Amino acid sequence: MSDTQRFDRVLIANRGEIALRIQRACRRLGLETVAVHSEADAESRHVREADVALCIGPAAAARSYLDTDALLLAARVTGASAIHPGYGFLSENADFADAVEAAGLTFIGPTGASIRQMGDKITAKRAMRDAGVPCVPGSDGPLPASMDEVQVLAETVGFPVIVKASGGGGGRGMRVVWDAADLAEAVTLTAKEAQQAFGNPTLYLERFMQKPRHIEIQVLCDTHGTALWLGARDCSLQRRHQKVLEEAPAPGISPAVIAEIGARCAEACRKIGYRGAGTFEFLYEDGIFAFIEMNTRVQVEHPITEATTGIDIVCEQLKIAQGEALAIGQEDVVTYGHAIECRINAEDPFSFMPSPGTISRWDLPGGPGIRVDTHVVGGYTVQPYYDSLIGKVIGHGASREEAIARLRVALAEMRVEGVFTNLRLHQDVLADPRFQEGGVDIHYLERWLAERAAS
Amino acid sequence: MSDTQRFDRVLIANRGEIALRIQRACRRLGLETVAVHSEADAESRHVREADVALCIGPAAAARSYLDTDALLLAARVTGASAIHPGYGFLSENADFADAVEAAGLTFIGPTGASIRQMGDKITAKRAMRDAGVPCVPGSDGPLPASMDEVQVLAETVGFPVIVKASGGGGGRGMRVVWDAADLAEAVTLTAKEAQQAFGNPTLYLERFMQKPRHIEIQVLCDTHGTALWLGARDCSLQRRHQKVLEEAPAPGISPAVIAEIGARCAEACRKIGYRGAGTFEFLYEDGIFAFIEMNTRVQVEHPITEATTGIDIVCEQLKIAQGEALAIGQEDVVTYGHAIECRINAEDPFSFMPSPGTISRWDLPGGPGIRVDTHVVGGYTVQPYYDSLIGKVIGHGASREEAIARLRVALAEMRVEGVFTNLRLHQDVLADPRFQEGGVDIHYLERWLAERAAS
Repeated sequence: MSDTQRFDRVLIANRGEIALRIQRACRRLGLETVAVHSEADAESRHVREADVALCIGPAAAARSYLDTDALLLAARVTGASAIHPGYGFLSENADFADAVEAAGLTFIGPTGASIRQMGDKITAKRAMRDAGVPCVPGSDGPLPASMDEVQVLAETVGFPVIVKASGGGGGRGMRVVWDAADLAEAVTLTAKEAQQAFGNPTLYLERFMQKPRHIEIQVLCDTHGTALWLGARDCSLQRRHQKVLEEAPAPGISPAVIAEIGARCAEACRKIGYRGAGTFEFLYEDGIFAFIEMNTRVQVEHPITEATTGIDIVCEQLKIAQGEALAIGQEDVVTYGHAIECRINAEDPFSFMPSPGTISRWDLPGGPGIRVDTHVVGGYTVQPYYDSLIGKVIGHGASREEAIARLRVALAEMRVEGVFTNLRLHQDVLADPRFQEGGVDIHYLERWLAERAAS
Repeated sequence: MSDTQRFDRVLIANRGEIALRIQRACRRLGLETVAVHSEADAESRHVREADVALCIGPAAAARSYLDTDALLLAARVTGASAIHPGYGFLSENADFADAVEAAGLTFIGPTGASIRQMGDKITAKRAMRDAGVPCVPGSDGPLPASMDEVQVLAETVGFPVIVKASGGGGGRGMRVVWDAADLAEAVTLTAKEAQQAFGNPTLYLERFMQKPRHIEIQVLCDTHGTALWLGARDCSLQRRHQKVLEEAPAPGISPAVIAEIGARCAEACRKIGYRGAGTFEFLYEDGIFAFIEMNTRVQVEHPITEATTGIDIVCEQLKIAQGEALAIGQEDVVTYGHAIECRINAEDPFSFMPSPGTISRWDLPGGPGIRVDTHVVGGYTVQPYYDSLIGKVIGHGASREEAIARLRVALAEMRVEGVFTNLRLHQDVLADPRFQEGGVDIHYLERWLAERAAS
């Protein structure tokens, strides 16, 4: 790659713990950082820690963190020559990536074309299927216009099936059909909703996996043809499609099986010319992996992979964006032990509603194998405008049992006052015998919460 | 071992970060904890986190943390059946260990006899020499009464020599003699000082190593005959005999050499029937290891060994004291990467005097490979009565370079207000090319400080 890609000042188009995380990686590599922030975040730690900080708009994300023009202007006036989008916000917005590059800046992530390809679930799935990544049986593209053909297709795939909006995501625009008799109505309704919600009525259909696990493969790809996979994560502990607790590796799935899937993901990256960090998300049931989507950015749960592999994923993102070749090969990726991340949210423990407010006490845990990533400091005010994540506590140990034990100690000594949190939920999950056994499915947490509420 | 050793409630005869560290280990093993504290420490985190807390006296350590009767009474009234002494205070007081055992409680550490044996430098050195641990050439026992014989001895050992009080320690009661002509006066003066300071005029003499490094070997010994060594630490960065920054492994010393010394230390432990955690301290110069002393307790710098081996040393102390056999053998002790600990002190950066006061801001670092052990929370008041350690920041990475880089990022984002700290000193050391090269001697930091002060 040409030297023109080199940059020495990075604008971080994000907030919260991930903004701080990216600052750490920049500092590690001797890069200066530009923080952008909304008016509500003026006192945030990522703002104080940056080399340069700029307010780009009011609290509402649409007018600050999601405002492409404001971000590009901020880069120009501060002399930043690269932009790291973090996760959420504009991180998977292909137009933003294109606009960054069009402005002569480096987008720290894949190309806009890659993001676009993976952002549409149909094209993503087709590309992955072509590249040898296992996918769930389904329509392999938009549904036929004829309802008769849809019926035949669904019978071939086998009920239950799930009908999904091609432009959907985050749990919206999908409907499970358990019986052939209900198919036509489900298709009609979902198409109508998809048109309303996403401006696009295109649907596709898949076999519905009833109690799958969520398993994902982290990849890192440079611009010199090297693509590595960094082991698997199990993110099955979810509530309303939001991950609560993640772990690496995936309990009970043999390393050989993961290696087979990992190699296919890496191969797919080479085929599609992917660059940067990314994650292949799969449903996993009865020994079958079914690709659901690729996240073309760093993920909230990246620290568990860092703990088990020793690789600094955000540093690697920066180095790849500078045109550097990955310094290691697949044979150098060696995993050690087990890591679990608890997402600490400011939320009501019963209603799960966000719990904004000022944190009057914020005593962090420590000790062996404990990592804490947080932008919060004592006196911090949790804003109502953004997500409720106030920190991540990661436990690492030689075994899963040890990681769990260390986390239980860490959470027990963590003290948060002024807002409600889900600390207790994490404690209860970590103490749950079924969780401790390993391998719960993606519906487990909701069933468990429902049972607990009923008892 | 008999079942009578089992205990389920541990009194922690200490304060500060190590009290919290021991609480973590107890929680990890499902043991209840009793915190004792002075009046000055009533609001401390180790007090709040304990299952039971008891004030045992006024601020002065002699009337609280060093008060054997108060500690034993506290154990009795709270139903604690074991006492963990931490480091400092009574941790290496053989009479205390004996008193604990005499009261029918478990002392979490070696026997009083072991502590006594290692507490006297002459008997310690003799025992180690007999057990095959390399020692510095010297008198191998108290100096002869005749000054002529002392002169002959010193000529045989070779100048410079160091004359030391047998009952001394912590840098007190010692004198370097560079020339035979000065020997007689040095012996007379040191004996007089030793009598005054330690009530014991007995001296011994050793070859004085001019620019040695401080290398130490961590051991763990159960009561079933297993003794393990857990790699080496380099603690050469010292100021006035106080360790400032420690690292593991020791840069530039081959694993084979360390394995040879480690095996001798483990063998010595088996010979003397040592139990629990301990550390063999050596001076190291020109490829020669010279035993100086054994610390019969957990050390401040134990986390760097935990980071590189994955072994929880404090948990192992507790399990050994319960009579459990070590679950691993020497072949299972595998080290990974490099770890460095920075001791964060509340002290004036120029005078190095303690800087007591209330900490108004306490923003901790995080990120990959960073562990923070601290009892401090925002609003904490650093007391003038105790040592100035307010926290330890440990950086771990695949290489020494990575550990350094991660620590530099962590210290750069750590914010402490209300007291002065040595954060800047650590930053400067980590940025120093000679330190980065590795292998500085125990006088390096003082020379470097002197040069900096002069420039």
